[in-house]
Amino acid sequence: MSTYIGPIRDMQFVMKELAGLDEVAALPGNEEVSSDLVDAILEEAGRFATEVLSPLNHSGDQEGARWSEGAVKTASGWKEAYRQFSAAGWTAIAAAPEYGGQGLPKLLSTAVMEMWKSANMAFSLCPMLTGGAIEALMLRGSDEQKSLYLTKMISGEWTGTMNLTEPQAGSDLAAVRTRAEPQGDGSYKLFGQKIFITYGDHDLTDNIIHLVLARLPDAPEGVKGISLFAVPKFLVGADGSLGARNDVHCVSIEHKLGIHASPTCVLAFGDKGGAVGTLVGEANRGLEYMFIMMNEARFAVGMEGLALSERAYQHALGYARERVQGTEAGVRGGGKVAIIRHPDVRRMLMSMKSQTEAMRALAYVVAAATDLAHHHPDPEVRAERQAFVDLMIPVVKGWSTENAIDVASTGVQVHGGMGYIEETGAAQHLRDARITSIYEGTTAIQANDLLGRKVARDGGQAIKAVIASVRQTAAEAGSLDGPAFKAIQNALADAARALEQAVDFVLDTYGTDIKAASAGSVPFLKLLGIVAGGWQMARAAIVARNALASGKEQSSFYQGKIITARFFADHYLSLSAGLSHAVVYGAAGTLDLPEELF
Amino acid sequence: MSTYIGPIRDMQFVMKELAGLDEVAALPGNEEVSSDLVDAILEEAGRFATEVLSPLNHSGDQEGARWSEGAVKTASGWKEAYRQFSAAGWTAIAAAPEYGGQGLPKLLSTAVMEMWKSANMAFSLCPMLTGGAIEALMLRGSDEQKSLYLTKMISGEWTGTMNLTEPQAGSDLAAVRTRAEPQGDGSYKLFGQKIFITYGDHDLTDNIIHLVLARLPDAPEGVKGISLFAVPKFLVGADGSLGARNDVHCVSIEHKLGIHASPTCVLAFGDKGGAVGTLVGEANRGLEYMFIMMNEARFAVGMEGLALSERAYQHALGYARERVQGTEAGVRGGGKVAIIRHPDVRRMLMSMKSQTEAMRALAYVVAAATDLAHHHPDPEVRAERQAFVDLMIPVVKGWSTENAIDVASTGVQVHGGMGYIEETGAAQHLRDARITSIYEGTTAIQANDLLGRKVARDGGQAIKAVIASVRQTAAEAGSLDGPAFKAIQNALADAARALEQAVDFVLDTYGTDIKAASAGSVPFLKLLGIVAGGWQMARAAIVARNALASGKEQSSFYQGKIITARFFADHYLSLSAGLSHAVVYGAAGTLDLPEELF
Repeated sequence: MSTYIGPIRDMQFVMKELAGLDEVAALPGNEEVSSDLVDAILEEAGRFATEVLSPLNHSGDQEGARWSEGAVKTASGWKEAYRQFSAAGWTAIAAAPEYGGQGLPKLLSTAVMEMWKSANMAFSLCPMLTGGAIEALMLRGSDEQKSLYLTKMISGEWTGTMNLTEPQAGSDLAAVRTRAEPQGDGSYKLFGQKIFITYGDHDLTDNIIHLVLARLPDAPEGVKGISLFAVPKFLVGADGSLGARNDVHCVSIEHKLGIHASPTCVLAFGDKGGAVGTLVGEANRGLEYMFIMMNEARFAVGMEGLALSERAYQHALGYARERVQGTEAGVRGGGKVAIIRHPDVRRMLMSMKSQTEAMRALAYVVAAATDLAHHHPDPEVRAERQAFVDLMIPVVKGWSTENAIDVASTGVQVHGGMGYIEETGAAQHLRDARITSIYEGTTAIQANDLLGRKVARDGGQAIKAVIASVRQTAAEAGSLDGPAFKAIQNALADAARALEQAVDFVLDTYGTDIKAASAGSVPFLKLLGIVAGGWQMARAAIVARNALASGKEQSSFYQGKIITARFFADHYLSLSAGLSHAVVYGAAGTLDLPEELF
Repeated sequence: MSTYIGPIRDMQFVMKELAGLDEVAALPGNEEVSSDLVDAILEEAGRFATEVLSPLNHSGDQEGARWSEGAVKTASGWKEAYRQFSAAGWTAIAAAPEYGGQGLPKLLSTAVMEMWKSANMAFSLCPMLTGGAIEALMLRGSDEQKSLYLTKMISGEWTGTMNLTEPQAGSDLAAVRTRAEPQGDGSYKLFGQKIFITYGDHDLTDNIIHLVLARLPDAPEGVKGISLFAVPKFLVGADGSLGARNDVHCVSIEHKLGIHASPTCVLAFGDKGGAVGTLVGEANRGLEYMFIMMNEARFAVGMEGLALSERAYQHALGYARERVQGTEAGVRGGGKVAIIRHPDVRRMLMSMKSQTEAMRALAYVVAAATDLAHHHPDPEVRAERQAFVDLMIPVVKGWSTENAIDVASTGVQVHGGMGYIEETGAAQHLRDARITSIYEGTTAIQANDLLGRKVARDGGQAIKAVIASVRQTAAEAGSLDGPAFKAIQNALADAARALEQAVDFVLDTYGTDIKAASAGSVPFLKLLGIVAGGWQMARAAIVARNALASGKEQSSFYQGKIITARFFADHYLSLSAGLSHAVVYGAAGTLDLPEELF
């Protein structure tokens, strides 16, 4: 079994030297944020991840959550780990101070979240979903809802869930049928069935606050007739005491490919007379509220892609250093060597490492931009950063999660036959990663959002600003000596050109032939991911080069950054032209086949 | 659960119109082979696959093979299915007539094998491994070994296994430690432990013939000191009767990611005094024999890549036709539609379909070439076809299996959240596919073989002949009217150029800097796979166009071929330049990082 160690050195590099921690720390409200505080929190979180969460990852997978008689029992060790997790204040780090949260910047909470997800993704889903419910209540909850629920959710005493999906309403939430009947006293009774509810039931806490999409009796059809309700597992008295068991029950849990220790529940509302709930915000605006929260949730799932890639990389690297097999290529009479000496094993490890670092760099840069978009005093900066964040959220989500599947699969491959044996643990990362490109909006949903709302709607303004920055970085790389920077410059400049062609195609086509544009949406998303990731890797290489030139310490770390950026340029940026071709020329092949000929 | 239907129309097209069934049927020994016979066998095999094997695929996965007290029990229904399978003569179709086999050409047995592997890969492994053991005995077995074992293995009364791997000897078989002590009577006693032995024990038949790599006491070190032995589970009397239980025992089976119903055994030889065996062929030539058989085995695993892709495609297609979600892009006020109407779902299905058809076309063309290489009267034709087969075997194996992981993962994605639920069955295809790029030589092992033995050794002669043919096909496509053929021509010509650059790099580098060449070996293999697959798809499109022009029936099938070939050109051939870049320029990034910086 592998032990996870937080990649703190790389996190520090990205936060401080790429993503602009100083600028984030200078924002109003971040007066206490300093480089030292960041180091201390990362170190503490890393220790918790390694010592408490990581050891439960494999055992939790093998044991799984169990359902019996309407209730879910979590895997061995889960309850104690959760107790420690909330006691240490980790449930509160990103939440608002007025309800007991620590209000730390997103840049920092992002790095901390990455560690939970690397160490134990199945565990991390519980605080993540609770965070979504907290955000919804912060955003639109009444004072009463806030006072009843928020403090206890932020402290971790209670958890929260998001109840969106129904059997006929997956990607298409307009099809939600769960109904809410007003009781005349300001409360509602809910009736319906929700599926795929993460931690919809468990034994970690005394209460669970379900946020539920449902329709009022007089609601209009479709997306504009869906409201959001708060439905506690146990009713809560005005003094915060727990009352009667509410009529929401877990009727089964799913047998899934991965994240076995995270219970995925079917929740039945109202089988015994109606589940009592209260309206959150205004009637018929539930989906709108979900959209406001979507950036946060999608970003978090993107972090799962990054986090599982890091975990799979560490796992594969450990094996490649230890496993002795064969002799070194080109060395006559040499003894057997560890497989990390074999060129293709190195290629696989470099592919995992470089993709992971590219994803981390992009995600943290987006996290810092989110902090600026929310808190910068200058409204122009806020607007410009928000446009960048909006553009990149579907990329962080879609690209990182698709990558994670590839990276985790490569991790299995590094292990050879042992990778296929569940005891090794490498296969779990692939099984766990496989959900990330599906939930919280599939990659196609991300790609549609990217094309429609983020590229076409503003006439390409935000993405063209990115392309201009990419070109500037390419030119900067080209001004530095050495073959690595020449390779990076060429690959990045070619990739920017390929991306620009794809953008022009989308802008030309989206309004006139949406199907032709959409046919290339996922290749477009991957292309933008590669270009954005390669851009950040190039920036990292330039920063590293300057640090080396200035004679700073840790030169080997910086040297590694340059080599890793070069690998990414020659192995991933080089795919840009092909992806652009698929966007610009691929629609006919995608759309022309008559349906009966499939 | 999905029902598998043999893709007989496409199989017929590839066999008869692309791979040259006529030419194969004209070979000596194939006098009884005709188009009608082929149709009849495909239909019969398709029925067996659909009715007997496919229904056990999911239940076998869920139940798995079970080990208890030294013996393996197969999943429910397995024994009866195996009985029917051998009773129907399917174990014998490729085997030699002198021992009861039907001696059908490889082109035909390949299509039949594809169906077993699509319908139920875990089941198919039993006859596949038996086929390997049969081939070893045919090749080098003594008359006594042949008369004792072959007829019963070919009839399916007994099965066979291949015992190569040991804990310290995976990809590196030179490290085998199992030892064989001569008993002075021509027999040997074997001592040692073998792992990853597929169907190393089971309850399907009364006896199992294990072929085992082991070292004689006086054997030289390394690869030249390994011999091959036949070790039956039960000793066999001269009259063929079963005697005492031999000292080979299954001490455990692995808990694997997939192929749960295929028992993967740890076999202990000689724990109770020695497992009695006989030498196959000459001493110290065991690995050499394995190499002779390797083409067959690697081709068969490549077929698993194709077969699982086909199965995953059928499964995803069925879901995409049924699942209603969302409205059609660009259609105002339309109702909800099946998801096959959504452009990205089409893109996913086309990617699965086009890759599957490309793999099938290439594999069958290689199968037909194998028939010619073995049986053509002209030794020059035999040599030329053998060179083509040798070049393409690592591609059929490595490219098809890597693709299968991608295709099966795409199949999960088409299912959305349901794909992650094991009950749906889509995830099983991904779990099953994940082994194929590992066993029988990992993709890196295939790529090393390709670079060293198949490209560098003959100075690029075989691969340059392929490139010339690809260019000819591109030109032919270019002579036809219509945007599809223009797209195919351009993509194929560009891809041929990209491949040629990569080949030149390999030829320049392999002798002087083997690490730099090897660093690009897997991208090189993928590049050759894409070019070879795209070449066959282009040939298919040209054949289809000519058939349409001649006014043949089934025009819609041929129309589909052209569209599918175009999709492959614009979405896969277009990646060639990027892969070539990784081969030619990617080595520095791969090799430069100091080991401690990973």
